[in-house]
Amino acid sequence: MSQTPKQSAERPVPTSADVARLAGVSRATVSYVLNNTSAVRISEPTRRRVREAAEELGYVPHAAARSLRAGHTRMVLLPTAHVPVGPLYSQFFNELQWALRRLDYTVVQYGSLGLEGDEAARAWAELRPVAVVSFGEVALTRHSVDVLKRSGAKAVITLGPRRVEGAHSLVMDQSEIGSCAVSHLVARGRRAIGVVMPEQPGLELFSEPRLEGARRAASVTGARIEPLPLSYDEESAAALAARWRELELDAVYAYNDEHAQLLMRALQDADIDVPGATAVIGADDLLLGRLLRPRLSTVHIDMVTGRRLAELVDGMVREPGDEPEIHDLMGARAVHRESS
Amino acid sequence: MSQTPKQSAERPVPTSADVARLAGVSRATVSYVLNNTSAVRISEPTRRRVREAAEELGYVPHAAARSLRAGHTRMVLLPTAHVPVGPLYSQFFNELQWALRRLDYTVVQYGSLGLEGDEAARAWAELRPVAVVSFGEVALTRHSVDVLKRSGAKAVITLGPRRVEGAHSLVMDQSEIGSCAVSHLVARGRRAIGVVMPEQPGLELFSEPRLEGARRAASVTGARIEPLPLSYDEESAAALAARWRELELDAVYAYNDEHAQLLMRALQDADIDVPGATAVIGADDLLLGRLLRPRLSTVHIDMVTGRRLAELVDGMVREPGDEPEIHDLMGARAVHRESS
Repeated sequence: MSQTPKQSAERPVPTSADVARLAGVSRATVSYVLNNTSAVRISEPTRRRVREAAEELGYVPHAAARSLRAGHTRMVLLPTAHVPVGPLYSQFFNELQWALRRLDYTVVQYGSLGLEGDEAARAWAELRPVAVVSFGEVALTRHSVDVLKRSGAKAVITLGPRRVEGAHSLVMDQSEIGSCAVSHLVARGRRAIGVVMPEQPGLELFSEPRLEGARRAASVTGARIEPLPLSYDEESAAALAARWRELELDAVYAYNDEHAQLLMRALQDADIDVPGATAVIGADDLLLGRLLRPRLSTVHIDMVTGRRLAELVDGMVREPGDEPEIHDLMGARAVHRESS
Repeated sequence: MSQTPKQSAERPVPTSADVARLAGVSRATVSYVLNNTSAVRISEPTRRRVREAAEELGYVPHAAARSLRAGHTRMVLLPTAHVPVGPLYSQFFNELQWALRRLDYTVVQYGSLGLEGDEAARAWAELRPVAVVSFGEVALTRHSVDVLKRSGAKAVITLGPRRVEGAHSLVMDQSEIGSCAVSHLVARGRRAIGVVMPEQPGLELFSEPRLEGARRAASVTGARIEPLPLSYDEESAAALAARWRELELDAVYAYNDEHAQLLMRALQDADIDVPGATAVIGADDLLLGRLLRPRLSTVHIDMVTGRRLAELVDGMVREPGDEPEIHDLMGARAVHRESS
């Protein structure tokens, strides 16, 4: 797997011993100064000499060595796979990263495409993160959580639709979104409701529970639910619109605002009146929905803020002894505009 | 900065010595087996015993220890900051991550919000990556590249609008996009051209060279260029549309398709005919442009594929002695639809 590094004509990587020699101090002093250890008294001139020697040699402390000594890092690992990230998640990621940095953590997103369960947990554990925040893209088991904890992780936190045993779960109940959308359509008098199911891989984590929520909301009222697979391109949307009249639907919950934009355009091009013949509702409450005509109804999602999540992570790192907790962190409400 | 880890009631983290003891082998054997070293002959029963002992104790090798021994890792570090990532970049990131994994690298995105130049380089160097691929969000200098190389990075690669001395630069010439857009508008007979400049922080890395390209294309023809600051919300777009007639523009290059959608809606709401009174062109060639009416003209961007970039990274890691190369990796062409 790993190859022997080619040394060839390259200069050797400077070590803390080189810095100590140049500065005329001990290696321990170099370590104290460069790791900002305040417990040890070192004069300002000595500190300056060490820093200048490090600068001259181009020496950087090795996080690996430091974490070997400390037994853990200040690293918060966020596994990421291939789920297409929308604007809502981008903003959330930025906020979380910023808030964790302010608490003196380093945020590392670990590419986990193709990794599953225990294999994933072992790969992450090798970096000895102090906390892992998983967004549910990689399925974890009770055992993978144990692997991470045994390797020194103080907190394993899962966000997302599913609970994971042994982990702190911050449940974002996606079914609530489907339920909100369908309740809104039923309240507006609709009884035969399509639910768009995107065909993009990875999205079933979100679309399946949303469909479940849609069914739940419909079952109380006797409305009919019809799942509608759709890939995110014009041809699929046109094909769906072409057989729309056979489907005898009077409304559609289109998964999110982007899919709603796609489907609404195809329906309009097929002379199906929105909202007259078919009401349309999306989700995410993106700006684009307000730019469409008719203006798009949507489900507004209140996600946990990045700042709040950073505080939860920090709390769990500081008090890791607590029992795993479950927080329900997502709110959803329908926003009525012109398309429904 | 770092606190002493609380040991309290937690079980100690298992070490390779524990595994060796349980399996009745030496620590070296444990290391050979778990790091899949093929150079050393170890019988299959012994390998199995070591793996079972590791499994029972929940032991995972420490990447830090391994990289201390090897002097480097198989980690490719991608610094990320807060630039809003559109669908084009998401897809590229996924591809790159996938292709690097197939070449047996681990992809780590390092949250670098608020880090600049040398400070950033030192933070990344602490993880001893074998390669760093920077997307230009964090400004690197010749010196930061040296810091990374001294710490063992075989390849420092910058993508993005700017060259960095000492690094392999895969230049994506953003000015070409602005130039394409304006050449298209001029060819369609327009002479007074607005250029939308998004006010979102981070985007100036892209918008400034695009404006420069727009000016370059216009200067040849005597067309006038007018920069138009715009924040991505309805109010700003409406305010810009309200003073549109004073600006006496007959065309606008709206930075990208999303900003074009926003501005085109505001112009239409202010009864300014598109393309009659004002031609509009975006960039990125997103699906949404084809869903608008009139259909949006755009600049199609040919980015380097993730697979091609992964091969370049791998080549530079294997042959790090080469002089820094500059590749121009981006193509751009105008796509004419109905809005221009």
